[in-house]
Amino acid sequence: MLNNIRVVLSHTTHPGNIGAAARAMKTMGLRHLYLINPRLFPDPQAEAMAAGADDLLRDAVVCGSIDEALHGVVFTVAMTARLRDISIEVNSPREAMPLLLQQAAQQPVALLFGTEMSGLTNEEMGKAQVLVNIPSDPEFSSLNLAAAVQVIGYELSVAAQSHAPAIPEIRPAPHQQVEGFFAHLEKTLCEIGFFTTQNPARMMQRLRRLYARARLEPEEVNILRGILSVTTEYNARLAKRYLEEHQDVQKH
Amino acid sequence: MLNNIRVVLSHTTHPGNIGAAARAMKTMGLRHLYLINPRLFPDPQAEAMAAGADDLLRDAVVCGSIDEALHGVVFTVAMTARLRDISIEVNSPREAMPLLLQQAAQQPVALLFGTEMSGLTNEEMGKAQVLVNIPSDPEFSSLNLAAAVQVIGYELSVAAQSHAPAIPEIRPAPHQQVEGFFAHLEKTLCEIGFFTTQNPARMMQRLRRLYARARLEPEEVNILRGILSVTTEYNARLAKRYLEEHQDVQKH
Repeated sequence: MLNNIRVVLSHTTHPGNIGAAARAMKTMGLRHLYLINPRLFPDPQAEAMAAGADDLLRDAVVCGSIDEALHGVVFTVAMTARLRDISIEVNSPREAMPLLLQQAAQQPVALLFGTEMSGLTNEEMGKAQVLVNIPSDPEFSSLNLAAAVQVIGYELSVAAQSHAPAIPEIRPAPHQQVEGFFAHLEKTLCEIGFFTTQNPARMMQRLRRLYARARLEPEEVNILRGILSVTTEYNARLAKRYLEEHQDVQKH
Repeated sequence: MLNNIRVVLSHTTHPGNIGAAARAMKTMGLRHLYLINPRLFPDPQAEAMAAGADDLLRDAVVCGSIDEALHGVVFTVAMTARLRDISIEVNSPREAMPLLLQQAAQQPVALLFGTEMSGLTNEEMGKAQVLVNIPSDPEFSSLNLAAAVQVIGYELSVAAQSHAPAIPEIRPAPHQQVEGFFAHLEKTLCEIGFFTTQNPARMMQRLRRLYARARLEPEEVNILRGILSVTTEYNARLAKRYLEEHQDVQKH
């Protein structure tokens, strides 16, 4: 199960933290490191801090975007240091890791960690199904990136040892399919004039939250996109008929 | 309860690890850092890695021996990376932290971490009541020191949140009283000639294990030491009588 888990570090500033995170991963049996636009990588500091986990650094996948890093992933857990207003569901590590393992029994899943200073952007968090907050002292909650990876890896490893693999009730659609749906949805809502009185970005966040809770299956994505297609076709027909009627008016 | 917990780092080699450990502690609400013969402290690298936990470094207590660091402590949990032959009870962090918290409700307790390369010595582990092993990949089990502090601190903080403080059934004797007993015991066993066919160090390890399980109360230590005193007095009387008889033999 741990083999289906990728650790995704977004826009990491210090290469030493990448190395220390790799070391933390390897102690807990995690192998697959993905890096979204790291500031410096590869780098000697990363290797020094990896202290024997340099094989993970060698095999690390460097990506240019979050969608590239999450390609093929069916379930994403994003780490957050604070509780946010636009948040999806926020769980403790102990609640979330068994969920992640359950999905990892069959298909790739991801753990998403933000940049050292400011964490994940709202857009990045919108790509996740579950947010996780490591409980910490409210007056000093700044866990080091590798320390957060260590705690999460530890919870995963403990959960894996006590985990009786069960078939998940749902088989969620892969990331790129869900993103395809969101793009289609946004385009459609724009076309039909839904956004005229709304903030499109904020509305899309709310819709993402809704569908994140639902954990769409592939067939459901097809159904929803079918509805979107029909919607715009219907609109196209309406527009065509309006044009025809308008031409009639002009003729009269 | 967390206020009664001291984190004791023994013979730490890299000052950066002391700083990172302080940061890990502070995120989890732990405040009291004790350092046994650190190689370099204070040091700018420790401050850099503390990243805002420099108050813990400022208040750190530097000790010349483990007994100094454990003075006043009634319960010590020692970390071990591997399972050893002379080991006392070995628990998981999830088993041990509620025990530690229970004792910490009333009196000082300690978490003992060894040096980076080789961990704790057998002698140091002999001072603990419980050993704890963080489960890790058998092929790569070398957690960074600060990462181990982070995991243990995290388990403590989660346990503290779900902990209904209960009066522990026993009130164990403080460290220095128990050590006084062990010194008395060893001296006595030596005096009465018990060690002639035994390896004294190994025998003392086994006796320490026995009493570690028992968790001696202050009155019990007094009773045991009373027995030791009587034993040597008895021996002294025997020796005196033997000498007298011997003199008699010589006289005859």
